[in-house]
Amino acid sequence: MSALPEPLNTLIAELGALPGIGPRSAERLALHLVQSDPQAVQRLAQSMVQARAQVQACQSCGGFTAQQPCAICQDARRDPSRVCVVERPVDILSLEKSGSYFGKYHVLGGRISPLNGVGPEDLEIQELESRLDREPIQEIILALGSDVESDATCFYLAKRLASRAVTVTRIAQGLPAGSGLDFADELTLTRAIEGRRSIR
Amino acid sequence: MSALPEPLNTLIAELGALPGIGPRSAERLALHLVQSDPQAVQRLAQSMVQARAQVQACQSCGGFTAQQPCAICQDARRDPSRVCVVERPVDILSLEKSGSYFGKYHVLGGRISPLNGVGPEDLEIQELESRLDREPIQEIILALGSDVESDATCFYLAKRLASRAVTVTRIAQGLPAGSGLDFADELTLTRAIEGRRSIR
Repeated sequence: MSALPEPLNTLIAELGALPGIGPRSAERLALHLVQSDPQAVQRLAQSMVQARAQVQACQSCGGFTAQQPCAICQDARRDPSRVCVVERPVDILSLEKSGSYFGKYHVLGGRISPLNGVGPEDLEIQELESRLDREPIQEIILALGSDVESDATCFYLAKRLASRAVTVTRIAQGLPAGSGLDFADELTLTRAIEGRRSIR
Repeated sequence: MSALPEPLNTLIAELGALPGIGPRSAERLALHLVQSDPQAVQRLAQSMVQARAQVQACQSCGGFTAQQPCAICQDARRDPSRVCVVERPVDILSLEKSGSYFGKYHVLGGRISPLNGVGPEDLEIQELESRLDREPIQEIILALGSDVESDATCFYLAKRLASRAVTVTRIAQGLPAGSGLDFADELTLTRAIEGRRSIR
Protein backbone atom coordinates (compact mmCIF):
# COMPACT_ATOMS: atom_id res chain seq x y z
CA MET A 1 0.00 0.00 0.00
CA SER A 2 1.27 3.42 -0.82
CA ALA A 3 1.17 5.85 2.07
CA LEU A 4 0.27 8.69 -0.28
CA PRO A 5 -3.19 9.69 -1.46
CA GLU A 6 -3.94 9.07 -5.13
CA PRO A 7 -3.89 12.70 -6.42
CA LEU A 8 -0.40 13.07 -4.95
CA ASN A 9 0.85 9.90 -6.63
CA THR A 10 -0.54 11.14 -9.94
CA LEU A 11 1.26 14.45 -9.54
CA ILE A 12 4.53 12.73 -8.61
CA ALA A 13 4.29 10.58 -11.74
CA GLU A 14 3.62 13.63 -13.94
CA LEU A 15 6.48 15.61 -12.42
CA GLY A 16 8.83 12.64 -12.66
CA ALA A 17 8.30 12.58 -16.41
CA LEU A 18 9.93 16.01 -16.78
CA PRO A 19 13.59 16.13 -17.86
CA GLY A 20 16.08 16.26 -15.02
CA ILE A 21 13.47 15.48 -12.38
CA GLY A 22 14.17 12.13 -10.73
CA PRO A 23 11.74 10.20 -8.52
CA ARG A 24 12.96 11.87 -5.33
CA SER A 25 12.81 15.39 -6.78
CA ALA A 26 9.34 14.68 -8.12
CA GLU A 27 8.23 13.58 -4.67
CA ARG A 28 9.77 16.62 -2.98
CA LEU A 29 8.20 18.98 -5.53
CA ALA A 30 4.77 17.34 -5.24
CA LEU A 31 4.86 17.46 -1.44
CA HIS A 32 5.90 21.10 -1.63
CA LEU A 33 3.05 21.89 -4.01
CA VAL A 34 0.31 20.30 -1.89
CA GLN A 35 1.54 22.33 1.06
CA SER A 36 1.80 25.62 -0.87
CA ASP A 37 -0.68 28.43 -1.13
CA PRO A 38 -3.44 27.12 -3.47
CA GLN A 39 -3.30 30.40 -5.38
CA ALA A 40 0.41 29.98 -6.06
CA VAL A 41 -0.22 26.48 -7.41
CA GLN A 42 -3.02 27.82 -9.59
CA ARG A 43 -0.67 30.54 -10.87
CA LEU A 44 2.07 28.06 -11.73
CA ALA A 45 -0.39 25.76 -13.50
CA GLN A 46 -1.75 28.71 -15.46
CA SER A 47 1.71 29.95 -16.45
CA MET A 48 2.47 26.52 -17.89
CA VAL A 49 -0.66 26.26 -19.94
CA GLN A 50 -0.37 29.87 -21.09
CA ALA A 51 3.28 29.60 -22.04
CA ARG A 52 2.55 26.44 -24.01
CA ALA A 53 -0.39 28.07 -25.78
CA GLN A 54 1.30 31.39 -26.53
CA VAL A 55 4.89 30.45 -27.27
CA GLN A 56 5.30 29.45 -30.90
CA ALA A 57 8.12 29.15 -33.39
CA CYS A 58 8.77 32.43 -35.22
CA GLN A 59 7.60 31.96 -38.81
CA SER A 60 10.71 33.68 -40.07
CA CYS A 61 13.65 32.48 -37.94
CA GLY A 62 12.13 29.59 -36.00
CA GLY A 63 13.00 31.00 -32.57
CA PHE A 64 10.60 31.03 -29.62
CA THR A 65 8.13 33.87 -29.68
CA ALA A 66 4.71 34.98 -28.48
CA GLN A 67 4.21 37.23 -31.52
CA GLN A 68 4.85 36.95 -35.28
CA PRO A 69 7.53 37.69 -36.30
CA CYS A 70 9.63 37.43 -33.13
CA ALA A 71 11.19 40.40 -31.32
CA ILE A 72 14.61 39.70 -32.83
CA CYS A 73 13.34 39.49 -36.43
CA GLN A 74 11.35 42.67 -35.82
CA ASP A 75 14.19 44.59 -34.19
CA ALA A 76 15.37 47.21 -36.73
CA ARG A 77 18.53 47.85 -34.69
CA ARG A 78 19.80 44.36 -35.38
CA ASP A 79 22.14 43.85 -38.33
CA PRO A 80 20.04 42.32 -41.16
CA SER A 81 23.14 41.41 -43.16
CA ARG A 82 24.15 38.62 -40.76
CA VAL A 83 22.22 35.45 -40.03
CA CYS A 84 23.39 33.06 -37.37
CA VAL A 85 22.31 29.46 -38.05
CA VAL A 86 21.65 27.42 -34.92
CA GLU A 87 20.34 23.93 -34.31
CA ARG A 88 17.59 24.58 -31.75
CA PRO A 89 15.60 27.59 -30.54
CA VAL A 90 17.35 27.41 -27.15
CA ASP A 91 20.69 28.03 -28.83
CA ILE A 92 19.48 31.56 -29.64
CA LEU A 93 19.10 32.09 -25.91
CA SER A 94 22.69 31.01 -25.23
CA LEU A 95 24.05 33.37 -27.88
CA GLU A 96 21.87 36.25 -26.70
CA LYS A 97 23.17 35.75 -23.18
CA SER A 98 26.73 36.05 -24.44
CA GLY A 99 25.81 39.52 -25.69
CA SER A 100 28.27 39.14 -28.55
CA TYR A 101 25.97 38.91 -31.54
CA PHE A 102 23.65 41.54 -32.95
CA GLY A 103 22.43 40.02 -36.20
CA LYS A 104 19.44 37.81 -36.99
CA TYR A 105 18.99 34.07 -36.44
CA HIS A 106 17.82 31.00 -38.26
CA VAL A 107 16.86 27.75 -36.51
CA LEU A 108 17.67 24.60 -38.49
CA GLY A 109 15.62 22.32 -36.29
CA GLY A 110 18.29 19.63 -36.06
CA ARG A 111 21.52 18.28 -37.54
CA ILE A 112 22.06 16.02 -40.49
CA SER A 113 22.24 12.55 -38.98
CA PRO A 114 21.80 9.57 -41.32
CA LEU A 115 21.86 7.16 -38.36
CA ASN A 116 18.81 8.86 -36.89
CA GLY A 117 17.16 9.23 -40.28
CA VAL A 118 17.58 13.03 -40.37
CA GLY A 119 18.43 14.26 -43.84
CA PRO A 120 18.83 17.82 -45.23
CA GLU A 121 15.16 17.82 -46.26
CA ASP A 122 14.16 17.50 -42.60
CA LEU A 123 15.93 20.76 -41.69
CA GLU A 124 14.83 24.33 -42.39
CA ILE A 125 17.37 24.77 -45.17
CA GLN A 126 14.91 25.65 -47.92
CA GLU A 127 13.50 28.38 -45.69
CA LEU A 128 17.05 29.67 -45.16
CA GLU A 129 17.52 29.81 -48.93
CA SER A 130 14.30 31.71 -49.45
CA ARG A 131 15.43 34.16 -46.74
CA LEU A 132 18.64 34.62 -48.74
CA ASP A 133 16.45 35.52 -51.73
CA ARG A 134 14.36 38.12 -49.94
CA GLU A 135 16.63 39.48 -47.15
CA PRO A 136 19.87 41.49 -47.57
CA ILE A 137 22.00 38.72 -46.04
CA GLN A 138 25.76 38.94 -46.59
CA GLU A 139 27.09 36.51 -44.02
CA ILE A 140 25.81 33.22 -42.70
CA ILE A 141 27.42 32.24 -39.42
CA LEU A 142 27.11 28.55 -38.65
CA ALA A 143 26.82 28.30 -34.86
CA LEU A 144 26.44 24.55 -34.54
CA GLY A 145 28.17 22.30 -32.06
CA SER A 146 31.56 20.65 -32.48
CA ASP A 147 30.42 17.05 -32.86
CA VAL A 148 30.53 14.91 -35.98
CA GLU A 149 26.93 15.54 -36.99
CA SER A 150 27.33 19.30 -36.64
CA ASP A 151 30.49 19.05 -38.76
CA ALA A 152 28.56 17.17 -41.44
CA THR A 153 25.75 19.72 -41.36
CA CYS A 154 28.22 22.60 -41.72
CA PHE A 155 29.99 20.97 -44.66
CA TYR A 156 26.66 20.29 -46.34
CA LEU A 157 25.45 23.86 -45.86
CA ALA A 158 28.73 25.35 -47.06
CA LYS A 159 28.50 23.27 -50.22
CA ARG A 160 24.82 23.94 -50.84
CA LEU A 161 25.28 27.69 -50.37
CA ALA A 162 28.52 27.84 -52.40
CA SER A 163 26.83 29.30 -55.47
CA ARG A 164 25.25 32.12 -53.44
CA ALA A 165 26.77 35.56 -53.06
CA VAL A 166 27.10 35.12 -49.33
CA THR A 167 29.99 34.49 -46.94
CA VAL A 168 29.60 31.33 -44.88
CA THR A 169 31.57 31.20 -41.62
CA ARG A 170 31.61 28.83 -38.68
CA ILE A 171 32.14 29.76 -35.04
CA ALA A 172 35.60 29.00 -33.68
CA GLN A 173 36.62 25.87 -31.85
CA GLY A 174 39.39 25.99 -29.29
CA LEU A 175 40.11 26.36 -25.59
CA PRO A 176 37.06 27.26 -23.52
CA ALA A 177 37.38 30.48 -21.53
CA GLY A 178 39.22 30.29 -18.21
CA SER A 179 40.76 26.90 -18.95
CA GLY A 180 44.34 25.69 -19.28
CA LEU A 181 46.01 23.42 -21.83
CA ASP A 182 46.18 20.65 -19.25
CA PHE A 183 42.36 20.40 -19.16
CA ALA A 184 41.87 20.34 -22.94
CA ASP A 185 41.58 17.07 -24.83
CA GLU A 186 43.67 16.32 -27.92
CA LEU A 187 40.97 17.19 -30.45
CA THR A 188 40.26 20.54 -28.81
CA LEU A 189 43.97 21.38 -28.89
CA THR A 190 44.22 20.27 -32.54
CA ARG A 191 41.30 22.54 -33.43
CA ALA A 192 42.73 25.37 -31.32
CA ILE A 193 46.05 25.17 -33.17
CA GLU A 194 44.32 24.90 -36.56
CA GLY A 195 42.24 27.93 -35.70
CA ARG A 196 45.10 30.07 -34.39
CA ARG A 197 45.00 33.77 -35.23
CA SER A 198 47.66 36.40 -35.60
CA ILE A 199 47.73 38.71 -32.58
CA ARG A 200 49.88 41.50 -33.94
CA MET B 1 16.65 42.69 -23.87
CA SER B 2 15.68 39.17 -23.03
CA ALA B 3 15.66 36.81 -25.99
CA LEU B 4 12.68 34.98 -24.55
CA PRO B 5 9.01 35.82 -25.00
CA GLU B 6 7.21 37.08 -21.93
CA PRO B 7 5.04 34.01 -21.12
CA LEU B 8 8.21 31.90 -21.08
CA ASN B 9 9.97 34.30 -18.69
CA THR B 10 6.95 34.21 -16.40
CA LEU B 11 7.00 30.42 -16.39
CA ILE B 12 10.75 30.32 -15.70
CA ALA B 13 10.27 32.65 -12.73
CA GLU B 14 7.42 30.51 -11.35
CA LEU B 15 9.38 27.27 -11.75
CA GLY B 16 12.51 28.83 -10.26
CA ALA B 17 10.58 29.53 -7.06
CA LEU B 18 10.11 25.79 -6.42
CA PRO B 19 12.49 24.11 -3.96
CA GLY B 20 15.57 22.53 -5.53
CA ILE B 21 14.93 24.15 -8.91
CA GLY B 22 17.72 26.58 -9.77
CA PRO B 23 17.62 29.18 -12.55
CA ARG B 24 19.10 26.81 -15.13
CA SER B 25 16.77 23.94 -14.25
CA ALA B 26 13.82 26.31 -14.38
CA GLU B 27 14.88 27.44 -17.85
CA ARG B 28 15.36 23.88 -19.07
CA LEU B 29 11.99 22.79 -17.68
CA ALA B 30 10.18 25.79 -19.15
CA LEU B 31 11.74 25.26 -22.57
CA HIS B 32 10.80 21.59 -22.37
CA LEU B 33 7.22 22.46 -21.47
CA VAL B 34 6.67 24.90 -24.34
CA GLN B 35 7.90 22.23 -26.73
CA SER B 36 5.80 19.44 -25.22
CA ASP B 37 2.44 18.15 -26.30
CA PRO B 38 -0.09 20.80 -25.18
CA GLN B 39 -2.28 18.05 -23.75
CA ALA B 40 0.56 16.77 -21.56
CA VAL B 41 1.13 20.28 -20.22
CA GLN B 42 -2.59 20.62 -19.55
CA ARG B 43 -2.54 17.30 -17.72
CA LEU B 44 0.41 18.30 -15.53
CA ALA B 45 -1.19 21.64 -14.69
CA GLN B 46 -4.42 19.90 -13.79
CA SER B 47 -2.69 17.31 -11.61
CA MET B 48 -1.09 20.13 -9.64
CA VAL B 49 -4.27 22.03 -9.02
CA GLN B 50 -6.18 18.84 -8.25
CA ALA B 51 -3.58 17.49 -5.86
CA ARG B 52 -3.50 20.82 -4.06
CA ALA B 53 -7.28 20.95 -3.82
CA GLN B 54 -7.82 17.33 -2.78
CA VAL B 55 -4.86 16.57 -0.55
CA GLN B 56 -5.54 17.69 3.02
CA ALA B 57 -4.20 16.93 6.46
CA CYS B 58 -5.95 13.96 8.06
CA GLN B 59 -8.12 15.31 10.87
CA SER B 60 -6.99 12.51 13.14
CA CYS B 61 -3.25 11.97 12.53
CA GLY B 62 -2.29 14.99 10.43
CA GLY B 63 -0.87 12.95 7.52
CA PHE B 64 -1.59 13.70 3.88
CA THR B 65 -4.88 12.35 2.63
CA ALA B 66 -7.58 12.82 0.02
CA GLN B 67 -10.28 11.43 2.36
CA GLN B 68 -11.16 11.81 6.05
CA PRO B 69 -9.82 10.04 8.00
CA CYS B 70 -6.75 8.92 6.04
CA ALA B 71 -6.17 5.39 4.72
CA ILE B 72 -3.76 4.60 7.57
CA CYS B 73 -6.13 5.77 10.32
CA GLN B 74 -8.93 3.82 8.65
CA ASP B 75 -6.94 0.63 8.15
CA ALA B 76 -8.25 -1.92 10.68
CA ARG B 77 -5.23 -4.18 10.06
CA ARG B 78 -2.87 -1.61 11.57
CA ASP B 79 -2.01 -1.92 15.24
CA PRO B 80 -4.09 0.72 17.08
CA SER B 81 -2.05 0.32 20.27
CA ARG B 82 1.03 2.03 18.79
CA VAL B 83 1.28 5.63 17.65
CA CYS B 84 4.40 6.90 15.97
CA VAL B 85 4.93 10.63 16.50
CA VAL B 86 6.64 12.39 13.57
CA GLU B 87 7.49 16.00 12.84
CA ARG B 88 6.05 16.39 9.33
CA PRO B 89 3.58 14.52 7.11
CA VAL B 90 6.41 13.49 4.77
CA ASP B 91 8.07 11.60 7.61
CA ILE B 92 5.16 9.16 7.49
CA LEU B 93 6.11 8.42 3.90
CA SER B 94 9.73 7.65 4.87
CA LEU B 95 8.62 5.25 7.61
CA GLU B 96 6.04 3.57 5.35
CA LYS B 97 8.74 3.02 2.74
CA SER B 98 10.90 1.27 5.32
CA GLY B 99 8.04 -1.23 5.73
CA SER B 100 8.99 -1.71 9.37
CA TYR B 101 6.07 -0.10 11.14
CA PHE B 102 2.44 -1.18 11.20
CA GLY B 103 0.88 1.08 13.79
CA LYS B 104 -0.76 4.49 13.51
CA TYR B 105 0.84 7.92 13.21
CA HIS B 106 0.61 11.39 14.68
CA VAL B 107 2.07 14.47 13.03
CA LEU B 108 3.38 17.10 15.47
CA GLY B 109 3.72 19.81 12.86
CA GLY B 110 7.16 20.93 14.02
CA ARG B 111 9.74 20.79 16.79
CA ILE B 112 10.02 22.87 19.92
CA SER B 113 12.38 25.67 18.98
CA PRO B 114 12.46 28.75 21.23
CA LEU B 115 14.85 30.50 18.81
CA ASN B 116 12.25 30.25 16.04
CA GLY B 117 9.40 31.07 18.41
CA VAL B 118 7.93 27.56 18.27
CA GLY B 119 6.60 26.46 21.65
CA PRO B 120 4.71 23.31 22.73
CA GLU B 121 1.40 25.11 22.17
CA ASP B 122 2.25 25.45 18.45
CA LEU B 123 2.47 21.67 18.03
CA GLU B 124 -0.33 19.10 17.86
CA ILE B 125 0.34 17.86 21.38
CA GLN B 126 -3.12 18.53 22.76
CA GLU B 127 -4.59 16.54 19.87
CA LEU B 128 -2.19 13.69 20.74
CA GLU B 129 -3.43 13.79 24.34
CA SER B 130 -7.05 13.65 23.30
CA ARG B 131 -6.20 10.67 21.06
CA LEU B 132 -4.70 9.01 24.15
CA ASP B 133 -8.07 9.57 25.86
CA ARG B 134 -10.19 8.03 23.12
CA GLU B 135 -7.91 5.47 21.40
CA PRO B 136 -6.47 2.25 22.91
CA ILE B 137 -2.88 3.53 22.68
CA GLN B 138 -0.24 1.67 24.71
CA GLU B 139 3.01 2.91 23.17
CA ILE B 140 4.04 6.25 21.77
CA ILE B 141 7.12 6.00 19.55
CA LEU B 142 8.89 9.32 19.08
CA ALA B 143 10.34 9.22 15.56
CA LEU B 144 11.89 12.67 15.48
CA GLY B 145 15.32 13.59 14.14
CA SER B 146 18.58 13.49 16.08
CA ASP B 147 19.21 17.24 16.32
CA VAL B 148 19.01 19.43 19.42
CA GLU B 149 15.47 20.65 18.79
CA SER B 150 14.19 17.12 18.27
CA ASP B 151 15.93 16.10 21.50
CA ALA B 152 14.20 18.95 23.35
CA THR B 153 10.83 17.99 21.86
CA CYS B 154 11.30 14.37 22.91
CA PHE B 155 12.24 15.32 26.46
CA TYR B 156 9.26 17.65 26.68
CA LEU B 157 6.84 15.01 25.40
CA ALA B 158 8.24 12.31 27.68
CA LYS B 159 7.74 14.62 30.68
CA ARG B 160 4.28 15.78 29.64
CA LEU B 161 3.09 12.23 29.05
CA ALA B 162 4.73 10.82 32.20
CA SER B 163 1.46 10.66 34.14
CA ARG B 164 -0.27 8.69 31.38
CA ALA B 165 -0.52 4.92 31.31
CA VAL B 166 1.48 4.73 28.11
CA THR B 167 5.01 3.68 27.21
CA VAL B 168 7.03 6.40 25.48
CA THR B 169 9.95 5.24 23.34
CA ARG B 170 12.29 6.99 20.93
CA ILE B 171 13.76 5.50 17.74
CA ALA B 172 17.41 4.43 17.99
CA GLN B 173 20.41 6.51 17.05
CA GLY B 174 23.60 4.85 15.84
CA LEU B 175 25.47 3.77 12.75
CA PRO B 176 23.48 4.16 9.53
CA ALA B 177 23.05 0.93 7.54
CA GLY B 178 25.94 -0.11 5.31
CA SER B 179 28.41 2.26 6.92
CA GLY B 180 31.67 1.73 8.78
CA LEU B 181 33.01 3.24 11.99
CA ASP B 182 35.45 5.32 10.00
CA PHE B 183 32.60 7.28 8.40
CA ALA B 184 30.73 7.97 11.63
CA ASP B 185 31.24 11.22 13.54
CA GLU B 186 31.98 11.26 17.28
CA LEU B 187 28.42 12.04 18.38
CA THR B 188 26.99 9.22 16.28
CA LEU B 189 29.49 6.79 17.80
CA THR B 190 28.73 8.06 21.31
CA ARG B 191 25.01 7.50 20.70
CA ALA B 192 25.71 4.11 19.11
CA ILE B 193 27.66 2.97 22.19
CA GLU B 194 25.05 4.38 24.57
CA GLY B 195 22.34 2.56 22.64
CA ARG B 196 24.14 -0.80 22.45
CA ARG B 197 22.01 -3.89 22.80
CA SER B 198 22.75 -7.39 23.96
CA ILE B 199 22.93 -9.81 21.02
CA ARG B 200 22.82 -13.09 22.85
